[in-house]
Amino acid sequence: MRILVIGASGTVGSAVVAALADRHEVVRAGREHGEYRVDITRDDSVEAMFEAVGPVDAIVSTTGSLFFGPLETMRPADFNIGLQDKLLGQVRLALLGQHVLRDGGSITLTTGIVSDEPIRQGANATAVNAAVEGFVRAAAIELSRGVRINAVSPTMLTESQAIYGPFFPGFESVPASRVALAYVRSVEGPQTGRIYRVW
Amino acid sequence: MRILVIGASGTVGSAVVAALADRHEVVRAGREHGEYRVDITRDDSVEAMFEAVGPVDAIVSTTGSLFFGPLETMRPADFNIGLQDKLLGQVRLALLGQHVLRDGGSITLTTGIVSDEPIRQGANATAVNAAVEGFVRAAAIELSRGVRINAVSPTMLTESQAIYGPFFPGFESVPASRVALAYVRSVEGPQTGRIYRVW
Repeated sequence: MRILVIGASGTVGSAVVAALADRHEVVRAGREHGEYRVDITRDDSVEAMFEAVGPVDAIVSTTGSLFFGPLETMRPADFNIGLQDKLLGQVRLALLGQHVLRDGGSITLTTGIVSDEPIRQGANATAVNAAVEGFVRAAAIELSRGVRINAVSPTMLTESQAIYGPFFPGFESVPASRVALAYVRSVEGPQTGRIYRVW
Repeated sequence: MRILVIGASGTVGSAVVAALADRHEVVRAGREHGEYRVDITRDDSVEAMFEAVGPVDAIVSTTGSLFFGPLETMRPADFNIGLQDKLLGQVRLALLGQHVLRDGGSITLTTGIVSDEPIRQGANATAVNAAVEGFVRAAAIELSRGVRINAVSPTMLTESQAIYGPFFPGFESVPASRVALAYVRSVEGPQTGRIYRVW
């Protein structure tokens, strides 16, 4: 398969590339790294990437920013950061990407455990991740030509525990290499409309 | 209690007002109707409404627009309609409204059955409703002074069946008067972080 990974240089993205690269052609994209540079918050940037890359069998997104901060001081503009980036950015990859996928191709997006397990300062993250999961459930019933869509919802990564651990008290971490297996299931497996929880 | 209902002239809003007005002071707001006019997509409009209304014991939102259309032709800008209106509009009411609520007050937002049961052309609706539900789950653990937050998720209204029925094949409708009971449970009951599904 020819697989486009957006966010390929991140902790999860690198692990996904490592899990796929030995038996697939992996094309790496990202905001500041990779063979192709893309800003997922802009239609023209995403369209230019897809045109440059050409037809693919799978689109994997391991990217997207969120806003974290106390609810008491959170402003609507803060909340919109996650809506425009991790939510609409990934939806943009799916909406525009559906047309460059070969028959039977797949789209895999990334959410996170806070969708189901809210944390302090995480209202934007819970809402955005839940929205991406909703989009996946709904898009799965409309995609044509056998195109599938799934999401992977990782818990805190072991690699990120030093930084994010205090926000996830008592949460068990998982190594990125284990999270990457869920992306392999989504890309190579038969399912659609699934949220693969790696907790 | 003093209760502010935003979207008070709609099918659900009217039923909520009817269910509360005999034993509470209900203040009606809306885009084009009601004692107070408000555009939930703008900070300044929402802030002006809250300042004009003054302290309240409950904020009830029964408003918000979504985009409906086939996934194949959906554009990111279409998808952003629901993000800016029903999602960020209701989040705005909660974020700014938390500061005008009296101790022990409540916020009640509106989602819908497509959060759990996707329909054709409904990818934006599923994502937005799921996001509002995520926001409610997360905000509930951070609100202070005993302030609560819940959402009501109605199925298709009996009053709207003539228009929306074809989009909801086999869905059982419920009258708005029954949906209104869930808002009463949220406003007068003790719970927080709940999604009241009226199906």
